[in-house]
Amino acid sequence: MKNHDADHENGHAISNRRTFLGGALAAASAFGFADRLRGADAPDLMPLRSEIEKQHDQSVKRIQDWIKQPSIAAENRGMSEGCELQMELLRDAGFENVTKIPTDGFPGVFARLDAGAPRTVGIYFMYDVKQVDPSEWSSPPFEAALVDKAKLGKVIVGRGAVNTKGPQGTFLAALHAFKGAGRKLPVNLVFVAEGEEEIGSPHFPQVVHRPEVLAGMKKCQTGVYMPMAGQGVDGSVDINLGAKGVVELELVSSSERWGRGPKQDLHSSNEARVDSPAWHLVQALTTLVGPDGHTPAIPYFAEKARPLTPAEKAMIREAARRQPEAVVKQQLGVQHWVHDVDYLESLELLVSKPTINIEGLVSGYTGPGGKTILPHKAVAKIDMRLVPNLTAAGALAALKEHLAKHGFRDIEVNMTGGYDPTSTSADSALIRAEQAVYKRAGYDPILWPRLAGSWPGYVFTGDPLNLPAGHFGLGHGNGAHAPNEYYVIESANPKVKGLDDAVFSHVEYLYELARI
Amino acid sequence: MKNHDADHENGHAISNRRTFLGGALAAASAFGFADRLRGADAPDLMPLRSEIEKQHDQSVKRIQDWIKQPSIAAENRGMSEGCELQMELLRDAGFENVTKIPTDGFPGVFARLDAGAPRTVGIYFMYDVKQVDPSEWSSPPFEAALVDKAKLGKVIVGRGAVNTKGPQGTFLAALHAFKGAGRKLPVNLVFVAEGEEEIGSPHFPQVVHRPEVLAGMKKCQTGVYMPMAGQGVDGSVDINLGAKGVVELELVSSSERWGRGPKQDLHSSNEARVDSPAWHLVQALTTLVGPDGHTPAIPYFAEKARPLTPAEKAMIREAARRQPEAVVKQQLGVQHWVHDVDYLESLELLVSKPTINIEGLVSGYTGPGGKTILPHKAVAKIDMRLVPNLTAAGALAALKEHLAKHGFRDIEVNMTGGYDPTSTSADSALIRAEQAVYKRAGYDPILWPRLAGSWPGYVFTGDPLNLPAGHFGLGHGNGAHAPNEYYVIESANPKVKGLDDAVFSHVEYLYELARI
Repeated sequence: MKNHDADHENGHAISNRRTFLGGALAAASAFGFADRLRGADAPDLMPLRSEIEKQHDQSVKRIQDWIKQPSIAAENRGMSEGCELQMELLRDAGFENVTKIPTDGFPGVFARLDAGAPRTVGIYFMYDVKQVDPSEWSSPPFEAALVDKAKLGKVIVGRGAVNTKGPQGTFLAALHAFKGAGRKLPVNLVFVAEGEEEIGSPHFPQVVHRPEVLAGMKKCQTGVYMPMAGQGVDGSVDINLGAKGVVELELVSSSERWGRGPKQDLHSSNEARVDSPAWHLVQALTTLVGPDGHTPAIPYFAEKARPLTPAEKAMIREAARRQPEAVVKQQLGVQHWVHDVDYLESLELLVSKPTINIEGLVSGYTGPGGKTILPHKAVAKIDMRLVPNLTAAGALAALKEHLAKHGFRDIEVNMTGGYDPTSTSADSALIRAEQAVYKRAGYDPILWPRLAGSWPGYVFTGDPLNLPAGHFGLGHGNGAHAPNEYYVIESANPKVKGLDDAVFSHVEYLYELARI
Repeated sequence: MKNHDADHENGHAISNRRTFLGGALAAASAFGFADRLRGADAPDLMPLRSEIEKQHDQSVKRIQDWIKQPSIAAENRGMSEGCELQMELLRDAGFENVTKIPTDGFPGVFARLDAGAPRTVGIYFMYDVKQVDPSEWSSPPFEAALVDKAKLGKVIVGRGAVNTKGPQGTFLAALHAFKGAGRKLPVNLVFVAEGEEEIGSPHFPQVVHRPEVLAGMKKCQTGVYMPMAGQGVDGSVDINLGAKGVVELELVSSSERWGRGPKQDLHSSNEARVDSPAWHLVQALTTLVGPDGHTPAIPYFAEKARPLTPAEKAMIREAARRQPEAVVKQQLGVQHWVHDVDYLESLELLVSKPTINIEGLVSGYTGPGGKTILPHKAVAKIDMRLVPNLTAAGALAALKEHLAKHGFRDIEVNMTGGYDPTSTSADSALIRAEQAVYKRAGYDPILWPRLAGSWPGYVFTGDPLNLPAGHFGLGHGNGAHAPNEYYVIESANPKVKGLDDAVFSHVEYLYELARI
């Protein structure tokens, strides 16, 4: 899922919640809109639609079975079984040469589906899901129960329901419809998956850069896409043209590395004569941002960050026009934007500014009340968000150089994960096809320059592949990284598509990618 | 116990461990030294010595019974029973008018013992002890087992053994010796106790300022003392002429108070447009110390702190001479003093400098790895140590004013405990008597200007009483605030006094206070 790192965000560009776009043009019924809007040369999709409906129960069961297999990379739980089941699902759907790709971590999967078509499209899956605390769930997270949810309809509740086993099962159901209808796909598929998306995709480049995978991916000049549930709870749809990169790290100030301060926690009265690693960390942190306590002060960030283009500014203006500021502020629980900028500028900051954020601080005594100690160690958990022209490696090196320059060379910088930003042109066939299909379905998608969250699309959009990459899919779910994650099967809201319509959107998209 | 707040310090002035004074002159045997050195007009203490030995088993049992009654203010455990037992122990030892003094917290105790003597001495007890984790103990903390401990001899192991039920029982045994010998005390006693020393003595002024208590305490012109086990493991003895004051507090930066930042933790990608209370705290903290990351930058601290007197400097020089720097550094686990000052200056800093110490930092995600959140709150746990002419109220007000002046008025300052520094003149009868008794026992006590730790002596030494106040007692124990706290009953080391000698030291001290 594009926000692998977010349990507080489910990926919406502006509000982080899919609850806002009041102006969605969800008018046409899913069934029938295709022929009405596609034109005279359009293939007859009726048999595929019929197959989708005929196979509905199998499709639901396939998604349930897939959710029932836990596959949590962070806990090494069910990973081997999860990888095997994913491979089986691919074979069932018509993929050939389904191959496990070993890495230094959990393996990836590579597969192909040759339809003899002129064009080839890449498909990206992740087979891992986020951790769970079952006590927080209304039904067990790996039971994949079918539940009636108020205002939403019938949903599957389970870990991975929306992120991303539900949307994966939806895409696979589209391939099964082609099989059932005896129809060839309009494009060839090259498939690649990883099992470590939720832990920061540390070995995904090892999967993609294997010679046979790289050779396969190079054929995907149309682009690579990840199936997703692209609708908000109100039916709204947006299209992200990329995402910021991210570096997660710990800054550790310790007496051991510093050579000053106490070897172990000491009675605090000694602070009169002994250095404090906690103060040392506070001072180091202070150098990382400007006097506003916000703007990164590492020169690399300001010098390298690519400013917004006029086209990106126009997209942000349009998005701001369609999304009331008050709703966003309310959803975020925020009263003021940083520096008291106006709404438009707040969105420009969100898209265009690299950040250095404190995720957490830990030092010494952290329980209730106090404890009179001088701690020997202090840790800041940091994430840095990167815009185009910044790289994860560049940002990390710049941070280290900055610390050394300011007298904090001893502070340990432990990078725990991260990768470069990703961007795809609005003019690419991948994006234009997405817009066309969404519009034909009666939606007016917002084009958004760049998610402030992250996904490892840079592996496709960066060197050596330089392919367009994005997400596609109608349908709705929520609760990625949270309890009671769900995915809508039968929608109670005419603006929100249920499973069969979502499956059909992939059929439409594959045809559109073949002809655009 | 004078270091109520310390589980990393057991009260030694320089090293925080009673393991260093190699040069102690522990030559004379306890029995007999009195007559040899006191002079011709000395009272005959032989009958009292005989009573002490006769009552030995009862004295041990009294201490054990006292330890067996848990009385933990922090957990409200056994406090009522602890108070009652303390009162019973006082009555048994000859105190009259033993009265419970109610406060807004746990009650204090007030009592008198009128011997018809010209002079009156104040006695301070605490009846609470520190919390325990029984799993860390070699014998249950409230069983008060008698155990043979290597190199030390027979000890009582239990919570409160040294801090301070053992020394209290030792003092009470001295009073029982007078009773047993049919001898009147050489001084009158006014007794005051609190049950909240281990939680920072928040209501002790309410006890002492009760009219009848204040009237009683005013008679104690000779001073007030707290029985303690004053010897290090090597037999060394030191005399502290006071202690720093302390303020413990939390600095809380929250969106709620600030009116900026997110109401709840938010996905970290929003840091591009939303303020961060964690950065706000880091910036506020940075203003509290100078560019050295150490020296308090609140003007009140530097402006008001009383510099060392020539006499104090001389004491520090003498102490430095007797205590090898390498040993202290090794015990503290420290390689360099702050600012790379020399040893003498490090000790001057310890005695004379107020401090602002970070006890702990807590914000956002504190578990392993990272979590991409923008926390809505960040907390620094702080203690400030105060030297004479600084007060707890003054330091707190100065901190608040400083924060407001630097743009951090919103940061909450929650004081959780603390009090003023305390000082007693080396020329006071209380201290001179102490020196005399220790010297007669064959020790050469180090005079130390001021403990860097804290005890609530200011209630006696400050307004309105302005009395000398200190600690006294031979004997040894260790592990205050730690597991396996112990107190020596039969010493295996001739330089360290066992129970009977320790009891006898109080007999000596009371006589010395009567005549000095």
